[in-house]
Amino acid sequence: MLIETNADKLVKTLRFQIQDEPGYLGKLCSAIGQAGGNIGDVKTVSLGLLRTTRDLTIYVDDEAHLHRVVDAVRPLQGIELLEVTDEVLRCHEGGKIAVTSRHPLESIADMRKVYTPGVATVCRLLQANPELAARYTSIGNTVGIITNGTAVLGLGAIGPVAGMPVMEGKAVLFERLVGINGVPILLDATDVTTFVESVIRIAPTFGAINLEDVAAPACFEIEARLQKALPIPVMHDDQHGTAAVVLASLLRACLLSEVDLADETVGIVGLGAAGMGIAKLLLSYGVRRLVGTDLVPEAMDRLERAGGRRSTLAGVMGGATIVVATTGSPGLISADLVRKGQVILALSNPHAEIRPEDALAAGAAFAVDGKLVNNALAFPGIFRGALDARARRITDEMKVAAASAIAARAPEGELVPEILDRSVHRDVARAVAEAARDRVTP
Amino acid sequence: MLIETNADKLVKTLRFQIQDEPGYLGKLCSAIGQAGGNIGDVKTVSLGLLRTTRDLTIYVDDEAHLHRVVDAVRPLQGIELLEVTDEVLRCHEGGKIAVTSRHPLESIADMRKVYTPGVATVCRLLQANPELAARYTSIGNTVGIITNGTAVLGLGAIGPVAGMPVMEGKAVLFERLVGINGVPILLDATDVTTFVESVIRIAPTFGAINLEDVAAPACFEIEARLQKALPIPVMHDDQHGTAAVVLASLLRACLLSEVDLADETVGIVGLGAAGMGIAKLLLSYGVRRLVGTDLVPEAMDRLERAGGRRSTLAGVMGGATIVVATTGSPGLISADLVRKGQVILALSNPHAEIRPEDALAAGAAFAVDGKLVNNALAFPGIFRGALDARARRITDEMKVAAASAIAARAPEGELVPEILDRSVHRDVARAVAEAARDRVTP
Repeated sequence: MLIETNADKLVKTLRFQIQDEPGYLGKLCSAIGQAGGNIGDVKTVSLGLLRTTRDLTIYVDDEAHLHRVVDAVRPLQGIELLEVTDEVLRCHEGGKIAVTSRHPLESIADMRKVYTPGVATVCRLLQANPELAARYTSIGNTVGIITNGTAVLGLGAIGPVAGMPVMEGKAVLFERLVGINGVPILLDATDVTTFVESVIRIAPTFGAINLEDVAAPACFEIEARLQKALPIPVMHDDQHGTAAVVLASLLRACLLSEVDLADETVGIVGLGAAGMGIAKLLLSYGVRRLVGTDLVPEAMDRLERAGGRRSTLAGVMGGATIVVATTGSPGLISADLVRKGQVILALSNPHAEIRPEDALAAGAAFAVDGKLVNNALAFPGIFRGALDARARRITDEMKVAAASAIAARAPEGELVPEILDRSVHRDVARAVAEAARDRVTP
Repeated sequence: MLIETNADKLVKTLRFQIQDEPGYLGKLCSAIGQAGGNIGDVKTVSLGLLRTTRDLTIYVDDEAHLHRVVDAVRPLQGIELLEVTDEVLRCHEGGKIAVTSRHPLESIADMRKVYTPGVATVCRLLQANPELAARYTSIGNTVGIITNGTAVLGLGAIGPVAGMPVMEGKAVLFERLVGINGVPILLDATDVTTFVESVIRIAPTFGAINLEDVAAPACFEIEARLQKALPIPVMHDDQHGTAAVVLASLLRACLLSEVDLADETVGIVGLGAAGMGIAKLLLSYGVRRLVGTDLVPEAMDRLERAGGRRSTLAGVMGGATIVVATTGSPGLISADLVRKGQVILALSNPHAEIRPEDALAAGAAFAVDGKLVNNALAFPGIFRGALDARARRITDEMKVAAASAIAARAPEGELVPEILDRSVHRDVARAVAEAARDRVTP
C-alpha cells in the first residue's frame, strides 16, 4: 500500500510529452523505477496527434533524489519532461479551507434575510431562547481546532502559525468526512493558565473543542481544566483520537488471535500525550494488567495514578503480550527484545520504534506502524456523534463505542477499515451518539 | 424602494394554490394590500392543470398583522392558502455559513496532500520562513469577526451568542462580496483588559480583525490597544465602516449641492461608537468646524480631545449646515429644529431621529435615514484592500479612499451606489490598497 511505503517521501508531479506508441510509457516508468522513484497516479492531460501529455505523480526521498530521477528520464528518446511541480505546495496555496455562505446573495431580498434587518428577528429570538442557538446558528455544528503549536506532528514546538497546515487539514477532514465546520484557532499561549483562560473566553463560538498538537504534560491539565469549566465537549485528539484507533486495532488483533484483550498484559512504551491517552482508555476498557515506561519519572507517576504499573523497556517487552510504542524514537525496540507471538504497534511517525517486517521476522504475531493507525479514523465520527447527541463531554464509553465501531468495519484480515469510507465515519458517529445518550446525565 | 419601507418588518412566505385564470392573482394581491401587507417577490412553484402554486413574500408589522392578512385571504374563492413560512428563520436553520475544503478528499493521494504526511513539508517550510504563511495558509485571507455582544444592532447588550446571526451575516457578506473568509468569534468578555488579552492570544489566526457590535466607550480603548499590540489591521466596523459610508454620502451630497464639505459646519448628534467614528473621520478629512452633542459628558470630552466642539441639540441644529444623528432615539429631532437647506442624515435603525419626509417638508435639502447609509458598502472593500496590500493598520487615508471610491460610483441623483454591485466593492478595495501602499511605512 502506498500509504505505508511513501509516508515520509516528497510528492512531486512530473509532466511529460510522450510519443504516442506502445512501449514509451513503459520505458519511462522503468527509468523512474530504476532511479528509485515510486510512481503514484498517471493522468492524461491532453492527447495530440503524435504525442500525449501526461502527469506522473512520483514519490522521492528528497530533492537530491528528485534530481536523480530527472537525470534518469532526460536522455530517453521520444519523451520530454515539461515541468516538475510540488502538488502538496500547490494545494496549500491560499490555504486549504474557506468560510462560505450557505445562501445566495444576489438580491436585496437575500440581503434582508441573511443580514439586516432580518437578523434582528433571530437575535431577539435567541436572546429570549438561548437554547435555539443550536438550531439557528452554526455554533452547534462547529468545532474549534485549537493549538498552541507546542507539539506539531513529530516536528515539536514549531509554533501555532507553522502548525496551521495541520489545523486546516483537520478542518478539511471534518468537512469532507462528517460535515462539521472545523475552525482553526492559533493560540499564542504556552502556559497552561493563559491557554485555558483564552479558550474559555472564545468557547461560546463552538459546539465542541478539539485540542490539537499541544505538548505533554501541559496538555493533560489544559484538557482537564477546560472540560471542567465548559459545558461542551473538549477533546485533545492526540491523546484520545489516537487511543480510540489503537483500541480498535487491538480489539481486532485480539479477535483474529482469539484472545480477550482484557486478559492480556499490555505494555506502553512512551507516556506522552498519545501513550497516556492509550493507557487510560485501555484501563477504562477493562485491561487489568498494564505496564508502562518513559524516560520522564513524572510520566510514570502519572501512569501509576491512572492505575498502571511502572516498568523499564526490557520489563515491558519481556512482560507484555501486547506492546504499544509512541516514543518518537526510531529503532528504539531492537529485534532481540521481541517475544514470540507478541502484538506490536510501533506508532512513531515517520519512523517506527521497530519496523513491522523486523518485528514479524523476530516472531511477533502482528506488527504495524503508525501509518496504519491513523487518528483520522476516529476523531471525525467522535465529534459528529458528540454534536449530534448534544453531549457535554466525551466520555470513555463514547471512545470505546467509537473503537468498537471502527473494529467492526475492518475488512477480512485487516486491523482497521478504509479511512475514506464515509459509512465508517457514520457508523462511528452513530455509536458515539448512542453511548452519549445512554449515559445518565447527572 | 423595499429596503427603505420594510426595514423593520417581518418577512413571511405564503404559499397559495390559485385558480389558473386571469384575475385571481390580482384579487389575492389586492386582498393582501387591503390588509396592509406589502408584497415582495412572487414565485411560481408548480403549474397544475387548473391551479398554480405560488409563493408570495410579504412584509408585515408583526404576528398580529400576519393574522389579519391571513384572515383577509382565507375567504377568497379559487385561492387556497397552503402554508406560511418565515423565510428569515428558515435561512438561519443550521447557521448561514460553513467551513469548506477547497480540495477534494476522494483518494489516499488527496489525503496525503491535505493532511499527513504532506502537511509536514509545509509546516517545516513555514517554520523556516514564517512570511510564507500568507501564501500557504488561509491566514492572509481570513478576518476574525469578533464581538462580545454588548451593542448588537439596536438591541443593546444581548450577549455574544444572541449576536451570532449578525456575525454570520457579516461572514456571508465578506465571502459573497469580496471572497474573504470571515470567522465569527464570540467573546465572553465585557471588561476591556480581558477582551484585549483574549484577542491578542488568538490573533495569529487572522490576517485582520473586525471588531463588531462592541459598546462605547469600551470599544474605543479596545480598538486602540489591540491595534497598538498587533501587526495586523484592527477595525471596529460600527465606528469606521459607518463613518466611511457617511463620508461618502456627504461627499456626494456636497457635490450635488456644489459646496465643499471641508467648508461646512458639521454637527454630530450622538457620540457613541458610530458618532465618534464619523466625527473623527470628518475631522481627518479636513472638516474645520465640527460640533457635537451627547447626553454623556465624557462623550463630549472625547469629541473635544479629537478636535470637535461641544454643543447642545439646539446648538447643533442651529449652527450646522450638515447634521448626522446616531443616537438610537426615534423622533429626537423635531421638525421645528430643521433649518432651510440643511443636509440631514438621521441614521438610527429601525426608527430615525427624524423621518426623511418630515425633514424635507421642514426645508432640508437632503434627508436620508439609516437604511440607505449601510456600512456593508464599506467594510468588505476596506478589509479586502487592507489584506491585499498586507497593511498593518487601517489608516484614515484608507477610509477616505474608500469613501471617495463609494461616492464616485453613486448613480445620477443618488447618494450611494447599489450595495450588491461587486464592481463597487472591487473599486473600494483597489482604492484602499493603493492608499495603504502610498503610505510611507515607518
